[in-house]
Amino acid sequence: MTSRDGYHWTPEVGLTHGVPSLGVISPPTNIKNTDGPWDVIVIGGGYCGLTATRDLTVAGFKTLLLEARDRIGGRSWSSNIDGYPYEVYSPPIPTYQPNPNLIPTPDGRHLGPLTPSALNHFQLRTSPNTSTPTSTYMTHEAEDELLRTALHKLTNVDGANGRIILPFPHDMFHVPEFQKYDNMSYADRINQIQDDLTPNERASLEAFILLCSGGKLENSSFGEFLHWWGISGYTYQGCMDCLISYKFRDGQSNFARQFWNEAISTGRLGYVFDCPVARVSDSDDGVRVTARDGRVYAAKRVICTIPLNVLSGVQFSPPLSETRALAARNGHVNMCTKVHAEVDNKAMRSWTGITYPLNKLCYAIGDGTTPAGNTHLVCFGTDANPIQPEEDVRETLRAVGELAPGEFGVKRLVFHNWVKDEFAKGAWFFSRPGMLGDCLEGLRERSGGVVFANSDWALGWRSFIDGAIEEGTRAARVVVEELRPGRGVRACL
Amino acid sequence: MTSRDGYHWTPEVGLTHGVPSLGVISPPTNIKNTDGPWDVIVIGGGYCGLTATRDLTVAGFKTLLLEARDRIGGRSWSSNIDGYPYEVYSPPIPTYQPNPNLIPTPDGRHLGPLTPSALNHFQLRTSPNTSTPTSTYMTHEAEDELLRTALHKLTNVDGANGRIILPFPHDMFHVPEFQKYDNMSYADRINQIQDDLTPNERASLEAFILLCSGGKLENSSFGEFLHWWGISGYTYQGCMDCLISYKFRDGQSNFARQFWNEAISTGRLGYVFDCPVARVSDSDDGVRVTARDGRVYAAKRVICTIPLNVLSGVQFSPPLSETRALAARNGHVNMCTKVHAEVDNKAMRSWTGITYPLNKLCYAIGDGTTPAGNTHLVCFGTDANPIQPEEDVRETLRAVGELAPGEFGVKRLVFHNWVKDEFAKGAWFFSRPGMLGDCLEGLRERSGGVVFANSDWALGWRSFIDGAIEEGTRAARVVVEELRPGRGVRACL
Repeated sequence: MTSRDGYHWTPEVGLTHGVPSLGVISPPTNIKNTDGPWDVIVIGGGYCGLTATRDLTVAGFKTLLLEARDRIGGRSWSSNIDGYPYEVYSPPIPTYQPNPNLIPTPDGRHLGPLTPSALNHFQLRTSPNTSTPTSTYMTHEAEDELLRTALHKLTNVDGANGRIILPFPHDMFHVPEFQKYDNMSYADRINQIQDDLTPNERASLEAFILLCSGGKLENSSFGEFLHWWGISGYTYQGCMDCLISYKFRDGQSNFARQFWNEAISTGRLGYVFDCPVARVSDSDDGVRVTARDGRVYAAKRVICTIPLNVLSGVQFSPPLSETRALAARNGHVNMCTKVHAEVDNKAMRSWTGITYPLNKLCYAIGDGTTPAGNTHLVCFGTDANPIQPEEDVRETLRAVGELAPGEFGVKRLVFHNWVKDEFAKGAWFFSRPGMLGDCLEGLRERSGGVVFANSDWALGWRSFIDGAIEEGTRAARVVVEELRPGRGVRACL
Repeated sequence: MTSRDGYHWTPEVGLTHGVPSLGVISPPTNIKNTDGPWDVIVIGGGYCGLTATRDLTVAGFKTLLLEARDRIGGRSWSSNIDGYPYEVYSPPIPTYQPNPNLIPTPDGRHLGPLTPSALNHFQLRTSPNTSTPTSTYMTHEAEDELLRTALHKLTNVDGANGRIILPFPHDMFHVPEFQKYDNMSYADRINQIQDDLTPNERASLEAFILLCSGGKLENSSFGEFLHWWGISGYTYQGCMDCLISYKFRDGQSNFARQFWNEAISTGRLGYVFDCPVARVSDSDDGVRVTARDGRVYAAKRVICTIPLNVLSGVQFSPPLSETRALAARNGHVNMCTKVHAEVDNKAMRSWTGITYPLNKLCYAIGDGTTPAGNTHLVCFGTDANPIQPEEDVRETLRAVGELAPGEFGVKRLVFHNWVKDEFAKGAWFFSRPGMLGDCLEGLRERSGGVVFANSDWALGWRSFIDGAIEEGTRAARVVVEELRPGRGVRACL
């Protein structure tokens, strides 16, 4: 099935909108006008909404899932083209993060062996003093050493690389002094350590942390990076394992399908795709959700998984709390661009490259070999040097080419522009300085019959699939506790 | 409530059997003779059985839990004495292992900040060439360096500390050559590297890996240790984080209670404690479980979570598969002894010690400060130098004292002897050489209406709470898929 989301470009056909995805649900609805009222309406079919929907339907509740897109997965999905999965968003699934692995594959071996994204030669293109970047080539061992050293300088705020100031990453403000680092931007921290960084360390470090935030040096929270660092085990190797080295063997959308299948097989799931929500009205009689097309759905409770950056586009009655409204208005900073390029140089399978600061795609990694035998490169841009890849494909091709000039021709591009995506307005959550201290608790509060849940305000792997599962689990438990019919010990015996 | 399990000793009262635990369930049953038949019977109320029971009851199935003991938690529980939790078995809950954290505490902050088990001076007592151990004192930094170096020598079978030979710890035999290491004992591997180990490295290393296996050098699988190493992130720091540094803030049994509460609140849980099982008979009409007291319970499916080392004590019809029967007959090797000692030396709060090989308790760690202001030491013995702590308390006190002669007096002992425990016959699972290659798949197979599930044969954190949750989740999913009434998409809409 082809989704409306995403873009595909080949030299032969040019740019087309929409790519195939296993996440597309057809037909787009399974309900009739007379169905309902519902026990629960879940707004949003990303991992958080899918988890909540799965847990609610399994627990016996008649649940309606409303999704604005034509597919499940939200900001996280994959496009399988010629049998090869391009991850439109590919969060990590290391051994440290067993949650997603707990969905068994048909062979009962969880997800089975994961495909490591191999990384055998690193190309750093930078230009601290001139406007023409020059290439430095180094082994991956030297690349590791460069980044390890730079990251240790960045994170060593307490003589213990963050272990003292952030002993429990799930509880960011356990040590109240952590607030100081949450209030700092990347730029503030770089400023403190700049005299201790070599030019290559600085270029690589800035490119790496911008790859994490998708923002600018001035608007990305240093504290949020420390949270990523801590939850990855406070080491460079941990960051590689958690953030870079693994992907789903069969692609993201195949994984999302397993939540979906579990929910649908209960017989208690109603769903409507292509159904953006306009209004959520909560009263003593329950919650009413009005779609943009005017249809109204009613339920006892609503779990709202709309991402932070698009929450302001929905009308709430009563209105959003002050904290939530403020956070939604300011938004998070991640304006990451991810461009998949199929290139005709097989030798680049284990290549990595940074071209920074002068290129609109600053970081790239060889991610696999396509069925045609070409190399699949994943290339990232950030808001520090923004690019809208569909607006000028020649510019996009130039930016891809600049990563390793003269090394390859491009056979295919696949990408999705989250920034212009009206249901995302940004990629994975990344905090502004001070935002978490000010808003995290408020974002997690419920409001009457509406429970707000999203990876954007998870406590653990915030911004990752795991955080979405954490939040979906939390929201479903809140609702199940409240709606459970017989609470007595012997009710059904 | 006081459990029959465990022992308590004080100088004033001497040895008593049974200690208080939050895991004791009272009254011991909630069913009548006329209740039943059941959808599912779960045999065993450890974490695996609790997880399966929780998932099944939440999914709408009438479930009967049969437990031989008077409490939940199985081999993993805690005794709260004077408000202080002694972990009778304390597996790790690091940030890497988010599963248990996903059970929210009443304040909705998961388990909230975990209490780190602090570790400021290391005392190594060894005697490579004489029969009288002498003490060497070193900083914890030097202790870390000693163990890090020794563990790197042990694990570096592939030039990459196991990352090449075991790239996916959840899939042990992904690289078929791994079988070679599974076939090796600790002693075989030590033999290969002994010329490269200093005497202190060797003593510390052997004590550490025996602490992991609870067995002897000759009967513990080196491959299983590599699995622990890999799943902990292939680093010494990862091992400390995963195996040593964390415990539950409110104790193990408080955590187990949360699974229990979730199941009981569905109104679909029947249970009988003090109910050891004698026979499990599977036929086309369903499964019948006969308790030792002659009562018979019937269900459509049984999830059997009986640990490997006691499986032979139950009669199965049809009989256990050849592989399962063989594995159960041979058993796993973990005969660990864990003795909690409250000692009157406050300064030992951050003390660690190894006395090896000549003491019956080889490893000890300062684990906390008791309400009386004393230090709580956790002391471990293994089958390499076995001790039955309740049989001769003076010998046990001598072994505790030998860890740091002249440093303290003992005010209290708390322990549980898993080896003599008829429902465990050993502590957490640890493989014999070759056992996993021969038996792991066979142990995971179902047999007709009986699904076998236990952390002992989990794929991920085998032997840990996380592995029990993995297995309970798997078993419940198998059963839910089969028993779900309406599989049609619109069945309940």
